[in-house]
Amino acid sequence: MSIVLGPNQYGKAEVRLLRVDRDTARHRITDLNVTSQLRGDFRATHESGDNTGVIATDTQKNTMYAFARDGVGSPETFLLRLARHFVAEPQVTGGRWLAEQYGWERIATGASVGAPSSASVGPGTDAGGHDHAFVRGAAERRTALVHADDSGLTVLAGLRDVTVLKSTGSEFSGFPRDRYTTLPEVDDRILATDVTAWWRYAPSFAGTAGPAEYDARFAAVRSILLETFAELHSLALQQTVFAMGKAVLEAFDDIAEIRLSCPNNHHFLVDLEPFGLDNPGEVFFAADRPYGLIEAAVQRSADGGSAESGSADGGEHPAWSTIGGFV
Amino acid sequence: MSIVLGPNQYGKAEVRLLRVDRDTARHRITDLNVTSQLRGDFRATHESGDNTGVIATDTQKNTMYAFARDGVGSPETFLLRLARHFVAEPQVTGGRWLAEQYGWERIATGASVGAPSSASVGPGTDAGGHDHAFVRGAAERRTALVHADDSGLTVLAGLRDVTVLKSTGSEFSGFPRDRYTTLPEVDDRILATDVTAWWRYAPSFAGTAGPAEYDARFAAVRSILLETFAELHSLALQQTVFAMGKAVLEAFDDIAEIRLSCPNNHHFLVDLEPFGLDNPGEVFFAADRPYGLIEAAVQRSADGGSAESGSADGGEHPAWSTIGGFV
Amino acid sequence: MSIVLGPNQYGKAEVRLLRVDRDTARHRITDLNVTSQLRGDFRATHESGDNTGVIATDTQKNTMYAFARDGVGSPETFLLRLARHFVAEPQVTGGRWLAEQYGWERIATGASVGAPSSASVGPGTDAGGHDHAFVRGAAERRTALVHADDSGLTVLAGLRDVTVLKSTGSEFSGFPRDRYTTLPEVDDRILATDVTAWWRYAPSFAGTAGPAEYDARFAAVRSILLETFAELHSLALQQTVFAMGKAVLEAFDDIAEIRLSCPNNHHFLVDLEPFGLDNPGEVFFAADRPYGLIEAAVQRSADGGSAESGSADGGEHPAWSTIGGFV
Amino acid sequence: MSIVLGPNQYGKAEVRLLRVDRDTARHRITDLNVTSQLRGDFRATHESGDNTGVIATDTQKNTMYAFARDGVGSPETFLLRLARHFVAEPQVTGGRWLAEQYGWERIATGASVGAPSSASVGPGTDAGGHDHAFVRGAAERRTALVHADDSGLTVLAGLRDVTVLKSTGSEFSGFPRDRYTTLPEVDDRILATDVTAWWRYAPSFAGTAGPAEYDARFAAVRSILLETFAELHSLALQQTVFAMGKAVLEAFDDIAEIRLSCPNNHHFLVDLEPFGLDNPGEVFFAADRPYGLIEAAVQRSADGGSAESGSADGGEHPAWSTIGGFV
Repeated sequence: MSIVLGPNQYGKAEVRLLRVDRDTARHRITDLNVTSQLRGDFRATHESGDNTGVIATDTQKNTMYAFARDGVGSPETFLLRLARHFVAEPQVTGGRWLAEQYGWERIATGASVGAPSSASVGPGTDAGGHDHAFVRGAAERRTALVHADDSGLTVLAGLRDVTVLKSTGSEFSGFPRDRYTTLPEVDDRILATDVTAWWRYAPSFAGTAGPAEYDARFAAVRSILLETFAELHSLALQQTVFAMGKAVLEAFDDIAEIRLSCPNNHHFLVDLEPFGLDNPGEVFFAADRPYGLIEAAVQRSADGGSAESGSADGGEHPAWSTIGGFV
Repeated sequence: MSIVLGPNQYGKAEVRLLRVDRDTARHRITDLNVTSQLRGDFRATHESGDNTGVIATDTQKNTMYAFARDGVGSPETFLLRLARHFVAEPQVTGGRWLAEQYGWERIATGASVGAPSSASVGPGTDAGGHDHAFVRGAAERRTALVHADDSGLTVLAGLRDVTVLKSTGSEFSGFPRDRYTTLPEVDDRILATDVTAWWRYAPSFAGTAGPAEYDARFAAVRSILLETFAELHSLALQQTVFAMGKAVLEAFDDIAEIRLSCPNNHHFLVDLEPFGLDNPGEVFFAADRPYGLIEAAVQRSADGGSAESGSADGGEHPAWSTIGGFV
Repeated sequence: MSIVLGPNQYGKAEVRLLRVDRDTARHRITDLNVTSQLRGDFRATHESGDNTGVIATDTQKNTMYAFARDGVGSPETFLLRLARHFVAEPQVTGGRWLAEQYGWERIATGASVGAPSSASVGPGTDAGGHDHAFVRGAAERRTALVHADDSGLTVLAGLRDVTVLKSTGSEFSGFPRDRYTTLPEVDDRILATDVTAWWRYAPSFAGTAGPAEYDARFAAVRSILLETFAELHSLALQQTVFAMGKAVLEAFDDIAEIRLSCPNNHHFLVDLEPFGLDNPGEVFFAADRPYGLIEAAVQRSADGGSAESGSADGGEHPAWSTIGGFV
Repeated sequence: MSIVLGPNQYGKAEVRLLRVDRDTARHRITDLNVTSQLRGDFRATHESGDNTGVIATDTQKNTMYAFARDGVGSPETFLLRLARHFVAEPQVTGGRWLAEQYGWERIATGASVGAPSSASVGPGTDAGGHDHAFVRGAAERRTALVHADDSGLTVLAGLRDVTVLKSTGSEFSGFPRDRYTTLPEVDDRILATDVTAWWRYAPSFAGTAGPAEYDARFAAVRSILLETFAELHSLALQQTVFAMGKAVLEAFDDIAEIRLSCPNNHHFLVDLEPFGLDNPGEVFFAADRPYGLIEAAVQRSADGGSAESGSADGGEHPAWSTIGGFV
């Protein structure tokens, strides 16, 4: 038995790229953090340091900046351009291109104060606000991933760290009690989480969508996720997570699958009794660690029984293997 | 010559407190990170571990939660309540109470989708959005500080990490060139910073304002800072910083002084010439470190010459000594 | 076609647990960050909020603390105890238990000043130093993971953020040059990375090892990784990464596979020519982002050709699917 | 009354500089994060964007790299060189130069495995270990600051985030109990903190010390701080903090003053009674927030009564005003 190189990938990570569209006085900005990773026949460099086939990570970075000269469009279409460029190299058989997009809003000035408008995330109307001055929006980020292998290109889209909280409309009870159970049942608690989600576009969408379609779809999925979180009376964070994913799949036939990872950001009701006070759901301690962690995939099934996978052989779609923190 | 205890303070830091106002079905939330630090006669504990006078940091934390039972109001008024409570203890001669407030917006649902509204930061109209489901707003935080010493209570308010960017309207030239100067002069660059600001309220304001006045004033100052950043054609970040502070003092006579700390978040134009491409201000590399760092106080003066300080003896107001990263 | 629940897991993440062994006056401490995630039949809670089968994440946390009362041993054996406990529940068919261990050293006092000794990480001799006072060691962390599914328990061990640097003995050249290549070839550069590695123990080891064996093995693998990094004249980070993994597999037959993820922490030689100075490899700028990212698995093969997988059907061992950031 | 510019400073922050001393095959590395901030007559740039006097922050960065070509020495002497260079400019009346140094150790190889040795922090013997391969040491950092104003240059040295823990030998009792007190008295608890300290060298030391003296002194002060933490039976963290500072002043007459900022990193004994278990100081929950925060200056006094300040007029030494988070 010998020792051999197994699966491997390499590239340039976290290339920070700001693109300014300035064809008119009303600028638009796109702020990205892009990672490129190539797969293929790279045994020579691993085994002997022969770099004949190694497209330098610096070259991968340069390619991103050069491509951005023509405009970025949506993160998905930008990554698709990169993927097609690199898989055209003979030694490259696949790869993984990832982008995070930061949101900016136009600064309200003069008459437009009070009328925030989206500058770069989501379609929006982009009315109001300053022509070339922006303020960073929420800490949440829009994400996109293109996965390439022998079977072609797959597009995933997502969002990270969308922090949401319900001050009522959540309970947790009926769970089993064993020797180690001390948690009381509660019929009114705070439910808070940082939503991370990834959804996989069916080829019917990914093969035809342009930047505007990707932007619109992202905005629509985000709205559905938030609205479902808000509207569902929650008996468990698992129920909320599944409902959020299901609502997305119900709304869009050309989303094949969605996965969510949601910490349960505990807010503990403070016991004010020692101070002679009641606490009718008003004063909470927001804890850092530990936290619950709920992760689930929501998929489509032909028969309603077990889930249909995205890959030809009935297994998991290979794009998921490269996304950390998911089931 | 002997070795003695010098200035000292102690307390509980970063108490995470979420307050839910639920008197009607339309909940309001206030999300704070509060620090309490006491000063006074604490030689015994330092020199011999005699804790007779040491109000436990755990007690300071409990006091915050107990006081929140009555409502928080604005962060400034909440801190004032804490300060008055603790300085009433005979061994306490002063202290420092600090709060950071996180912003939340109501989740848009149904008809209200597309109409974001403030849930807790700033006064706003609070129309639209869900009754009890919220999404975290920008990473920026509103801050407040109450400083107590022999001369009484001083109130500072501020904001942190308000990230702004101008895609044009900024230049930098005319600086001296010595042996170590390589920076070219530019007449059109990106200007980006994370604004941290603290302003000190004159006693005339601090002595009478209630939560609504503090909230309204915060919102107004934030708007002025952003609008000035957006509108000024900038010849140097120093000019922008001074103009931002000056605009605030011009707008409000009862703000005595303002201090700003603003990194210059460099965005470097990428050289695309090696790829046969021009780059007319469209593709930028957003750098992490190093960064410029511009810090200035803007003050009032009787004669337009040197600045008048806030303290009786013409020196710096003592509240500033406890705020790190400022001149 | 209907919408169904796919793969899912839930649990309590980042439970911070400090265990003090104080059977003698010479205390030992074990400082862990533990995550427990369960898999099984949890459709009811997702679909309807029926929590009948949901072992509360709070209960999972309590179980960790209760088990720690008997001692922790090595992180691997502690996780195995947790795994066996939870998979005994009928609704639990698998899961994932993860630990990070922080290193502490005894504080040198009196005669022992200058003789650092390991307090908790690695086997060491534990001679010298204070009996019950400790100082945190390097930022690096030891990691362990137990994966459970129908085929039983699998043990992985690893380390994170072992930051290493060579000030010479590294070059990079011979890579292809295309339209987007600007990187010059270099025959002497700094090579720096933060090593993250995971290795999978063969059942022959995992089935019999006790805490002392796991500790000794961890220390031995860490030494091999560092020594290989130091000794190999590197023609590419890929070559170094593969050599590090290969050396581990060569040393230990009962390690089935190892995976490494190594950023290329770029240190750029500063151009001092504008200041009339040369720079013979002495002054460098340490960059933050972007960075190269090299990831590879090193495996065993019966014939020296393609790698043998760890799973029955020739695919990837399922434990790897739960580790993010790996190929 | 008009609005004027108050105190201000500007410069380049967090310049990451790695210096390799390679005059022999046994390399030495110095890894620094350096900030330069200038003060002086900079009204023109603030008021009108006239940059005639503004030494560009980019020039300040270049100067650091150029100076490093001659060697860095200790962080204190490197900062002194920078300070003297910049205050020689007519418009510069003062400034602030700050450095953080990261520690590296030589990688043990071959015969030297098991014999760690200091590569760059502290004097040490530098025996054993690899000639040019290093591993990052503890997360703690050595710090240095040079402050310049009309009265000349002042040198401060320090350390950050030296995380220490005692598993016994600490108690806390005798504190007052009011309406909001719930904390029980304990006679055996864990005491843990992240030590941040700054000490100010008397001119008699700062005026004559070279790199070797600064390095040796840093190592000696660090040892005293740790040893005192370890040896003192603690009745309050305040007592420990004061004793640490006092021990340093007692050891070195030419250290004028020391200030410490120490969070109380709470480790709560887990209540195992619900599980039928006792917990004799063995299983703890390590909490993140909130934490206690103890800050104190230890100074010299002519009469043992009140502290003698470092400045001519009896007030606080001005160097302290620029260090955040201190009293």
